[in-house]
Amino acid sequence: RVNGQRLWDSLMAMAQFGATKKGGCNRLALSDEDKLARDLFCQWCNEAGCTVTIDQFGNIFAKRKGKNKGLPSVATGSHLDTQPTGGKFDGVFGVLSGLEVLRTLNEHNIETDAPFEFTVWTNEEGSRFQPAMQGSGVFVGRFDLETEWNKKDINGVCLRDELERIGYLGSEPIGQRNIGAFFEAHIEQGPILEKQEQQVGIVRLGQGIRWYDVYATGQESHSGTTPMGFRKDALAASCEIITEIEKLANNVEHAVATTGFLQVSPNSRNTIAGSVKFSVDLRNPYPDVLERMHDEFNQLCNDVSLNRKVDIKVDHFWYFAPVEFKASQDVKQAAEKLGYTHMDIVAGAGHDACYMSDIVPSGMVFTPCENGISHNEIENTTLEQCEAGANVLLHTMLEASQR
Amino acid sequence: RVNGQRLWDSLMAMAQFGATKKGGCNRLALSDEDKLARDLFCQWCNEAGCTVTIDQFGNIFAKRKGKNKGLPSVATGSHLDTQPTGGKFDGVFGVLSGLEVLRTLNEHNIETDAPFEFTVWTNEEGSRFQPAMQGSGVFVGRFDLETEWNKKDINGVCLRDELERIGYLGSEPIGQRNIGAFFEAHIEQGPILEKQEQQVGIVRLGQGIRWYDVYATGQESHSGTTPMGFRKDALAASCEIITEIEKLANNVEHAVATTGFLQVSPNSRNTIAGSVKFSVDLRNPYPDVLERMHDEFNQLCNDVSLNRKVDIKVDHFWYFAPVEFKASQDVKQAAEKLGYTHMDIVAGAGHDACYMSDIVPSGMVFTPCENGISHNEIENTTLEQCEAGANVLLHTMLEASQR
Ligand SMILES: NC(=O)NCCC(=O)O
Ligand SMILES: NC(=O)NCCC(=O)O
Repeated sequence: RVNGQRLWDSLMAMAQFGATKKGGCNRLALSDEDKLARDLFCQWCNEAGCTVTIDQFGNIFAKRKGKNKGLPSVATGSHLDTQPTGGKFDGVFGVLSGLEVLRTLNEHNIETDAPFEFTVWTNEEGSRFQPAMQGSGVFVGRFDLETEWNKKDINGVCLRDELERIGYLGSEPIGQRNIGAFFEAHIEQGPILEKQEQQVGIVRLGQGIRWYDVYATGQESHSGTTPMGFRKDALAASCEIITEIEKLANNVEHAVATTGFLQVSPNSRNTIAGSVKFSVDLRNPYPDVLERMHDEFNQLCNDVSLNRKVDIKVDHFWYFAPVEFKASQDVKQAAEKLGYTHMDIVAGAGHDACYMSDIVPSGMVFTPCENGISHNEIENTTLEQCEAGANVLLHTMLEASQR
Repeated sequence: RVNGQRLWDSLMAMAQFGATKKGGCNRLALSDEDKLARDLFCQWCNEAGCTVTIDQFGNIFAKRKGKNKGLPSVATGSHLDTQPTGGKFDGVFGVLSGLEVLRTLNEHNIETDAPFEFTVWTNEEGSRFQPAMQGSGVFVGRFDLETEWNKKDINGVCLRDELERIGYLGSEPIGQRNIGAFFEAHIEQGPILEKQEQQVGIVRLGQGIRWYDVYATGQESHSGTTPMGFRKDALAASCEIITEIEKLANNVEHAVATTGFLQVSPNSRNTIAGSVKFSVDLRNPYPDVLERMHDEFNQLCNDVSLNRKVDIKVDHFWYFAPVEFKASQDVKQAAEKLGYTHMDIVAGAGHDACYMSDIVPSGMVFTPCENGISHNEIENTTLEQCEAGANVLLHTMLEASQR
């Protein structure tokens, strides 16, 4: 069994990097704060006797030897980056559950057959750079390294330059590690486990995601002298779309639709907006439903564009298909063996394990999250809940290493 | 008669400060570009023999002596600041028409009874700092000097510090100048003169304006895991309001309603927006209609707030009552004497002359503006149109100086 207090202490130590006044974290991918969090993780893994390797996309791999060198590793991990108003647990809990597994094995002098690897994936959040799960996506070959290296943040800063700047542009070629299975512990980020009073969730499915950048281009003009009928107002057009996509999701079971990012130009109160860029995030567990939402959204943009004589360009830059976790049975067995109450669950968010399941059997264990709130500085959970998740992770990995 | 070519050359010389690729100007109030434009104006006035004075709010007064020192000045002027995507004429045309009047008087050795003053008012646009017509508003006592000095731009930079930094924090106490009448030439910024094929517009009325800052506060939360019904989405609430205020104006004659400024926090695509700040600009020539719009807007914010459990705070920080120009008869007589086609017109925008009319008889002359487009880099007019406006200004001021 893991040491819950030690896990909790590590979580609190990590939370200092980018700590916000409201008790959360602002630790955007490849920021100075992300670097400090990465440095501490590497230091801890080195102290625990691991060999730490960084790949060309800044993904971190800490390897603990197994009895049988030739066997592929059993791997775990998650991410250390957060949202601008993120919490202390999203991602970090998965990374440090791995660390706690590592420390527990060392403490009990347990030698496993297969090697174990403890990972940190670059830019899982997709907040500073798009898309999300970028590091694991590059690793499994979903995304092209050069393309992702060249991605720019909102200030035009290039991802590769940031990797270099914080010292995490590694030399190991992408996707070269010998990994046989991947498991990830994560807070649920939703309200279901708490409501159902279950200690852990066995993730069967990750829902589908479509991400868009929408560019509305109208014509700048004076707010006082331009009659309503003569306007080509890029912001009014954008607001109409945002209001309508919400309705589109309201009528469809399990569907969510969100605009979280919006930028106006010239952003002056007495100039009608000439251009607006905004994000759209559509999700549904069923591919056909998500495709229907996609079609309706495109139709909506067309209609608004025609009605308002505002040009609307839709860049659908990311489709994340629903994922089935093939190793979820391993997670379930571990939860049962340990006597935790558990239930099957669907992940509302994307996770690195989703991309890892492209190449190896993967599984996820979810733990409850206070009031289902995540991507918020008040995101919360308890020592006991974290401990249960890490215990399930430990026993899932031990089981997998014996095959 | 003024020298149209000289006026045009001055306009093009000024347009270099903050020149944009699309042929417009980005010369926000108290920016480096604004300083350069001010410096050139002061240099030109000095060369033309004026005494230049700067007051404590950065307003510039260039005085040309009259035969009778005791008489109050006949003044003219406008502003040199622009919108972020502004044109070459809005404001600048009024300032440089004054300069052209000055140069014409010198050229013909004309001595006027009353002194003449040529002015530049600080932050007329209201884009970087609010409200608009801030310099003239402070001058006439509508706004308190200390309060306006402490206004901050979007980056938290303080107005008084910027005045000091660019060397325009003058020592002359506010409102101390002996001015007897004020006239302002300005491009119409709307389509009416062009459509009616009139050379100049005699401004009878400036319409009423109400400016608001709206603060929507919801709850940050994950875009993938938060069901639609559980959301407190500050951006969705804001977009609903923006879409609705537009409808409110669509149904009311002469009414306009605009949101040109909007800022989202944390502005991350997979976090539901926790807070949004946006502007609302409502205008109508009739005070009672504008008040009804104000009431409906407040009701709308209340309704959206209740429906969505998003807190909505409305800060109605500026009411600009409709203004009648008492000296419009002088402008009309000058236009008639010069044989220009003319019509009476309502100003859709606010102007420094509106505030000056609080304290002295004031008048405005409008000139046509291509396709009615202003607050846009493609804002345009012709040498002949500018020349006509400056001629009317010259003869209006000469007439007024004889009383
Ligand atoms: N776990 C998590 O919040 N991932 C971010 C990607 C997403 O938006 O689902
Ligand atoms: N003339 C002009 O554009 N003034 C700016 C203030 C307003 O919004 O009317």
